[in-house]
Amino acid sequence: MKDLRSKIAAFIDERDWEEFHSPKNLAMALSVEVAEIVEHFQWLTEEQSRNLPPEKLAEVREEIGDVMIYLSELAEKLGIDPMEAARAKLEINSAKYPANLVKGKAAKYTEYR
Amino acid sequence: MKDLRSKIAAFIDERDWEEFHSPKNLAMALSVEVAEIVEHFQWLTEEQSRNLPPEKLAEVREEIGDVMIYLSELAEKLGIDPMEAARAKLEINSAKYPANLVKGKAAKYTEYR
Amino acid sequence: MKDLRSKIAAFIDERDWEEFHSPKNLAMALSVEVAEIVEHFQWLTEEQSRNLPPEKLAEVREEIGDVMIYLSELAEKLGIDPMEAARAKLEINSAKYPANLVKGKAAKYTEYR
Amino acid sequence: MKDLRSKIAAFIDERDWEEFHSPKNLAMALSVEVAEIVEHFQWLTEEQSRNLPPEKLAEVREEIGDVMIYLSELAEKLGIDPMEAARAKLEINSAKYPANLVKGKAAKYTEYR
Repeated sequence: MKDLRSKIAAFIDERDWEEFHSPKNLAMALSVEVAEIVEHFQWLTEEQSRNLPPEKLAEVREEIGDVMIYLSELAEKLGIDPMEAARAKLEINSAKYPANLVKGKAAKYTEYR
Repeated sequence: MKDLRSKIAAFIDERDWEEFHSPKNLAMALSVEVAEIVEHFQWLTEEQSRNLPPEKLAEVREEIGDVMIYLSELAEKLGIDPMEAARAKLEINSAKYPANLVKGKAAKYTEYR
Repeated sequence: MKDLRSKIAAFIDERDWEEFHSPKNLAMALSVEVAEIVEHFQWLTEEQSRNLPPEKLAEVREEIGDVMIYLSELAEKLGIDPMEAARAKLEINSAKYPANLVKGKAAKYTEYR
Repeated sequence: MKDLRSKIAAFIDERDWEEFHSPKNLAMALSVEVAEIVEHFQWLTEEQSRNLPPEKLAEVREEIGDVMIYLSELAEKLGIDPMEAARAKLEINSAKYPANLVKGKAAKYTEYR
């Protein structure tokens, strides 16, 4: 993660792109990159999405890379470690969706209240 | 990353949610979580987005955690390491946006061809 | 459409929300509302998505209403009629995806070049 | 609206794309098209977003057309009239955000409870 962070920082610095990277703008860019992942899956069946041909998988891999870059950059600007944030959120989610209540069901947690 | 992966796997396994986690569905869930980040920033100025009050920052941190969780889960299902994908994409981006051409400008790379 | 426009304008004016409604912010808000539609479908099969129970359908209807409101508001700010824009785009799409080439296939148009 | 609907229906029918157009898939496609609008605005200031140059405005107009097409198609599949849904939602929003409480403030309605 640290290595990735310093590479992203160098990339932005060399291009003087710092001024564009407000958290507001980075949140927008993150959503645009995620949509490029979604675009690959929109007309596939779930089954097809589990069995991507190699060329398509390589394209999705690039988009996942872009999402990771922007997520990391947004988190950095806010002083957040995304790995730590994920671990903390996983604990919150565990309490929110008790295993015995939600087993095998996918519904918003509010429906279990 | 490995530690996070095994915690996510246990979380899903305890809830029997595996069947819902096709790459197609995970891409959708990822986009929904990113929108929850965007929602926090939509009416803020860029300046305000750089100076979030602590309560709001804590909420954004939770959403960043959720995005990291789903990104990690989607990548896992496709056999992709998101950190590796980010590093590889950063090299592609470096070639696509040569520093001397794009310095201080934010435009889609196609506009530089 | 005109009737809807004037109702939206009154709603915003009564709340002094004009200043927040830059096209940039409205694009963000539009993406957030669309994600609320996506959220309803993320864990459903395609088949289930064709057969929503009445309460869920009523919720999706509300989200579609919100998307229509923000789309209309964004278009208005840019001096665009969304219906006219849709008709014009449909003609562009007809040329881009010739029926004889794409029949029964869903792929990005570039794949047909 | 009716005229647009029949043109969209003919476009899809000529291409045998009906089978891909489950509400789930259309919700995904809608989110992808909205991201193409967001992409145009992500690095602009709010001020710049209010003053798009003509070529950029023409591109945004095309994306707004695509969003209107997919919104209309999704609504049709669910038996919903998007204009009616917008009018109904505007009344709900009026009750949810009372003008005297939210004047000049943009925050989620829950913050006013």
